[in-house]
Amino acid sequence: MKSVFRSAICSTLAFSLRSLNHIPNRNSLILLPRYVLVSPSKLSTLTSMATGDSVSHSPHSPALHSLEKQFEEFRHQLDDSGSLRERIRTVASEIESETRLIHSCLLLIHQSRPITEVLEKAKGQIGVLRELYVKLAEIMRECPGQYYRYHGDWRSETQTVVSLLAFMHWLETESLLLHAEAEEKLGLKPLEFGLDIEDYLIGICFMSNDLPRYVVNQVTAGNYDCPRKVLKFLRDVHAAFRMLNLRNDFLRKKFDGMKYDLRRVEEVHYDVKIRGLTMSGNSTGYQEGDEGRS
Amino acid sequence: MKSVFRSAICSTLAFSLRSLNHIPNRNSLILLPRYVLVSPSKLSTLTSMATGDSVSHSPHSPALHSLEKQFEEFRHQLDDSGSLRERIRTVASEIESETRLIHSCLLLIHQSRPITEVLEKAKGQIGVLRELYVKLAEIMRECPGQYYRYHGDWRSETQTVVSLLAFMHWLETESLLLHAEAEEKLGLKPLEFGLDIEDYLIGICFMSNDLPRYVVNQVTAGNYDCPRKVLKFLRDVHAAFRMLNLRNDFLRKKFDGMKYDLRRVEEVHYDVKIRGLTMSGNSTGYQEGDEGRS
Amino acid sequence: MKSVFRSAICSTLAFSLRSLNHIPNRNSLILLPRYVLVSPSKLSTLTSMATGDSVSHSPHSPALHSLEKQFEEFRHQLDDSGSLRERIRTVASEIESETRLIHSCLLLIHQSRPITEVLEKAKGQIGVLRELYVKLAEIMRECPGQYYRYHGDWRSETQTVVSLLAFMHWLETESLLLHAEAEEKLGLKPLEFGLDIEDYLIGICFMSNDLPRYVVNQVTAGNYDCPRKVLKFLRDVHAAFRMLNLRNDFLRKKFDGMKYDLRRVEEVHYDVKIRGLTMSGNSTGYQEGDEGRS
Amino acid sequence: MKSVFRSAICSTLAFSLRSLNHIPNRNSLILLPRYVLVSPSKLSTLTSMATGDSVSHSPHSPALHSLEKQFEEFRHQLDDSGSLRERIRTVASEIESETRLIHSCLLLIHQSRPITEVLEKAKGQIGVLRELYVKLAEIMRECPGQYYRYHGDWRSETQTVVSLLAFMHWLETESLLLHAEAEEKLGLKPLEFGLDIEDYLIGICFMSNDLPRYVVNQVTAGNYDCPRKVLKFLRDVHAAFRMLNLRNDFLRKKFDGMKYDLRRVEEVHYDVKIRGLTMSGNSTGYQEGDEGRS
Repeated sequence: MKSVFRSAICSTLAFSLRSLNHIPNRNSLILLPRYVLVSPSKLSTLTSMATGDSVSHSPHSPALHSLEKQFEEFRHQLDDSGSLRERIRTVASEIESETRLIHSCLLLIHQSRPITEVLEKAKGQIGVLRELYVKLAEIMRECPGQYYRYHGDWRSETQTVVSLLAFMHWLETESLLLHAEAEEKLGLKPLEFGLDIEDYLIGICFMSNDLPRYVVNQVTAGNYDCPRKVLKFLRDVHAAFRMLNLRNDFLRKKFDGMKYDLRRVEEVHYDVKIRGLTMSGNSTGYQEGDEGRS
Repeated sequence: MKSVFRSAICSTLAFSLRSLNHIPNRNSLILLPRYVLVSPSKLSTLTSMATGDSVSHSPHSPALHSLEKQFEEFRHQLDDSGSLRERIRTVASEIESETRLIHSCLLLIHQSRPITEVLEKAKGQIGVLRELYVKLAEIMRECPGQYYRYHGDWRSETQTVVSLLAFMHWLETESLLLHAEAEEKLGLKPLEFGLDIEDYLIGICFMSNDLPRYVVNQVTAGNYDCPRKVLKFLRDVHAAFRMLNLRNDFLRKKFDGMKYDLRRVEEVHYDVKIRGLTMSGNSTGYQEGDEGRS
Repeated sequence: MKSVFRSAICSTLAFSLRSLNHIPNRNSLILLPRYVLVSPSKLSTLTSMATGDSVSHSPHSPALHSLEKQFEEFRHQLDDSGSLRERIRTVASEIESETRLIHSCLLLIHQSRPITEVLEKAKGQIGVLRELYVKLAEIMRECPGQYYRYHGDWRSETQTVVSLLAFMHWLETESLLLHAEAEEKLGLKPLEFGLDIEDYLIGICFMSNDLPRYVVNQVTAGNYDCPRKVLKFLRDVHAAFRMLNLRNDFLRKKFDGMKYDLRRVEEVHYDVKIRGLTMSGNSTGYQEGDEGRS
Repeated sequence: MKSVFRSAICSTLAFSLRSLNHIPNRNSLILLPRYVLVSPSKLSTLTSMATGDSVSHSPHSPALHSLEKQFEEFRHQLDDSGSLRERIRTVASEIESETRLIHSCLLLIHQSRPITEVLEKAKGQIGVLRELYVKLAEIMRECPGQYYRYHGDWRSETQTVVSLLAFMHWLETESLLLHAEAEEKLGLKPLEFGLDIEDYLIGICFMSNDLPRYVVNQVTAGNYDCPRKVLKFLRDVHAAFRMLNLRNDFLRKKFDGMKYDLRRVEEVHYDVKIRGLTMSGNSTGYQEGDEGRS
C-alpha cells in the first residue's frame, strides 16, 4: 500500500516536474487523468526523466551526448505542446462557428421578432457550446496548471460567448448575467476549468456595444419603454465597472467604449421622452417586464 | 475539528482558485499541506467568498445587490492580481539591473582580460540573481498554477539571465549550459518554479549572438585557436536546435538568426586558417587552451 | 485515326508548352479540338521542346549546353506569360475606366434624379463592359487552367463591376443580383471564364457600403419609405452572408464592415419612424414604391 | 458508346462548371478521380447544378428563396475549398519538416565530412519528399485547373526543396539541376502537377546563397580547388539568369542577391590564388572531379 502511495507521489512529482518544464510529455498525456495507477516500470522512467538531466552530465557521459539527450527531450515536449495547441484551436474554432450560429439567431431580435421565439431558438444551441467547453476542459486536464499558457487560444471566442449569453440573459431577465451563472450555463467547473474574470468582463463590454442598436430597433418597432429599461441596466453595469481599478489594458479600452453605448441609449431615451412617446401596449413579450418595473 | 480542518482546505482551494480565477492544478491538491495554515478569521471570509456567488443569486437577493456584490469581489481579485503583478515586476526589474551588472563584467572579456579573472567577478554576482529568483518563486507560490499568467512579466529578463549564464559556462567548460544546470545555478526548484524551456532556448540564442564578437576579439588578441573551438561548439548547438520543430514564433526567429553567427565565426576561422595562423602554444585540450588564452 | 492521334499528341505538347509551368487539367485534354491547328513549324519546336530536357542530359550534350538551352526556353516562356499579363492588364484598365463612367452615372441617384432615367444611362454602358470581359475570356482561353494564375490582375476591377451591377439591380428590382445573373450580364460563360465567387461576394459588400448614403439622400428627398426597403434588403443579404464560414481574409474583413452599413440604415429608419414621417404616396408594392420615389 | 461519350462530356462540364465556380463541391470530390463513370442520377444533379442558379430565379421562386439557395451553395463550396486548403497545408508542412531533416544532413558538408557520406544520408530522404508530392498531386487532381489557386500554400516549401536538391546535385555532378530533372526527382508529372518555373528559379537562387559559405568551409578544410569550381558554376548560372527578362518581383529580388554570392566566392578564390595555395590532394571525394576539370 505504502509503495503504491509513494509511487503516487513520485508520479505526481514527475508531472509537476514536467509541468514545470511546462509541457506534458507523452507519458503524462497518458498518465495524467489517473494519478495513482502507475506501473513500476513507467514510474522508473518518470523518475529517471525527472532526474535525467543531472544524470546526463555525469563524468561518464560526454557533453555532446547530454546536449543531444536534452534536445531530444525538448523535441518531444515541444511537439506535445504543439499538438495540444492544435487540439485546443480545433475546439476553439468549433466554439467560434457555434457562436456565429447563435448570433444569427439573436440578430432576429433587431427585426423585432417576439423575444420568446428568438430566445427559444438561441437557447437551443447552448447545449452544443456546453459540450465544446467540456471538451476544452478535458484537454486542459491533461496539463494541470497550464490554463494560462494556452489561454490565448480560446479567450476571444469565450469573450464572444459571454457577450451572447449575457444578451440572452438580459432579454430574459433584464438583469446582468453573473460570472457564476455564465460558468454554470457553460458547464464550467471552477476547480477544473473556470471562466477568466477578465474574459467575462470583456464579454459584458461586448454585449453593451450591442444595446444601442437593440434600443434603436425596439423603438422603431414601437417598444417605447425599452430605452428606459436598457438605460437603467446599462447605468448599473457601468457604475459597477467603475468600482474596478482597471489597469491600462484591453479590458480598460473596452470599458472606456461602454460610455458611448450609454450616451447613445440616453439620446434614444431622450428622443422618446421629448416626443412624449409612451408604451402603446406592445406585443413583444414585455408585459411581465413592464409590470415588474414600470 | 476534522471537518473544520477539511473545510479549511476546501475553501482555501476555492479561494486560491477564485481570487486567481484560474484552475488550481491537481498537484496543488496534493501539495496542500503548504496551504492549511489559515487563520480562522481569514477562513470565514474565505468560505463566504467561496460560496458567495451561489448565494448571490438566491431568489431573496435582488439582481442589483448580487451585481454589486460580484463586482465588489472582482475589485478585490483584480486588486490582488494587480498588486501581485506589481511585486513581480519589482523583482523582475531588480533582476534586470543585476544582469546589466554581470553583463558589464563580462564585457571585459572582449578586451581580452584573463578569463579566470573576468569569471571571478561575474560569478560573484550570481548569488544575488539566485536570491531574486527565490523571491519570485515565493511570490508565485501564492498562486499555484498561474506561472503562465504572469510569465510575461519576467520572461525577457530571464532570457537575458540564461544567455549570460550560458556564456560564462562556455568560458569555463566550453560546453553548453544545460537547462537543468541553469535551474540549478538560479536555485529554481522545478517542482515549484521552473525555467520555461522556450525562455532557456531563447537565452541560448542570445548567447550565440555574442560569440562572433568574442571570436573576433580573441583572434585580435592572438588566441588563434578560439574560432575552431567556438565553431565546433556553435555547430553542435545549431545542430541540436535543428532537431526541434519550432513553430513560427519568436524562438523560431531567434534561432534563424543563429546561422548568421555561425557563418560569421566560420569566416573568422577561415581568415585564420588561410593565413596559416596557429596557436603560439598548443591547441589541444581545454585547460591548455585556457592557459594559452590567458 | 492516325491524324486524330497526331493532333492529340500535338495538342498535348501544346499544353505542356503553354502550360509551361502549370497543369493542363484533364478537361483541356478532352476539349482538344480547339488546339489542333498547329503549324508544322510550331509543331517541330513543340516536339523538340517536349523532348528537349530528356535529350539535354544525354552523355553527348555538355551540361553547359543543356543549361543554356533550358534558360533559353524559360526566357520564351517568361516573355510569353509577361506579354500575356500585359494584355490582361490593358483590358483590366479599360474595364476600370468603364466602371468609373458607370459609377458617375449612378452618382446622380444621390441627387434624387428619377431612377428610371439614371438606370437608362448606366445600363447603356454595360454593353462595353460585356465586350471587355469577352476579350478577357479570349485571352484566358489561350492558357487553360491558369485562370487563378492571372486572377489578381482583374479581380479588384471585377469586384467594382459587381458592386455597380448589384446596385443597379437593386434599384430596378429591390432584390439581390445573383452570381449567375452577374455572369449573364457580363456575358461570362462559366465553362470558359467564370466569375469567382469571392469576387462576387466582395462586390456585394462594396455595394452595401453605398446604401447608407443612398438612404440618407432618399429620405432627404422625401422618400420616407426607402429606409424600410433597404433595411429589409440589407438584413436579408447580411443574414445570407452569415451562413458562410469565411476564413480570416479580405472578404471576411469586408463583410464585417457590412454591419456598420446595416446599423446606419437602421438609424435612418429610426429617425424617420420616431418623427412619424410617412410616405406621401403609398408604401406597399415595389412598383408603386418606385413611382413614389421618382 | 454514345452514352459513355455523353457522360464523359457531362462530367467534363461538371468539372469546368465547378472550376468556373472554382471550388470543387462535394460531388466533384467524389467524382473527380474517375471521369467517365457518372451515374445518371449524379449526372442530373450535376447538370441541374450547372443551371441551378438560373432555375432558382424562375418566376415561381421568390427572390429570398433563390438568395438563400445561392448562399447555401456558396457555403458548401467555401467549406470544400477550405478543407481542401487544410489538406494542402498539412502536406506542405510535412514537406517543410522533411526539408529541415535533409538540410540538417547537408549541413555536415560545412564540417567537411566526406561528400559521398553526406549525400548518402541526404538522398535517403528524397523518397519521402517524393511521396509527399504525390500526395499533393492527388489532392490537386480533385480540382483540375486550380493549381494556381492554391499555389501559395506550397510554393515557399517547394522553393526550399529545389534549393536542397540543386545543392545535392551540384555536390554530385558539379552541374546545375535542370527543371526537368527536379520534376523527375520529385516524381512530378508536368501534365498533372508540375514544378512552377519561378519556384524552380527562386530555389536556384536560394542554393546560390549557400555557396559562399560552402566555399569558405571547404577552403578552411584545405580544399583549395573548390572556389575555382564553384565560381565557374555560379558564373554560368548567373549568366543564364541574365538571359531572362525578370519583371520586378520576388524572383528578381532574389536574383539580384545572387551577385553578392558571386562576389564573395570571387573574393575567396582571390584569397586562395594570391597566397598560391593549391590542392594538396584533399580527401573530400573530389578526385574524379579534379581529374575531370583541373
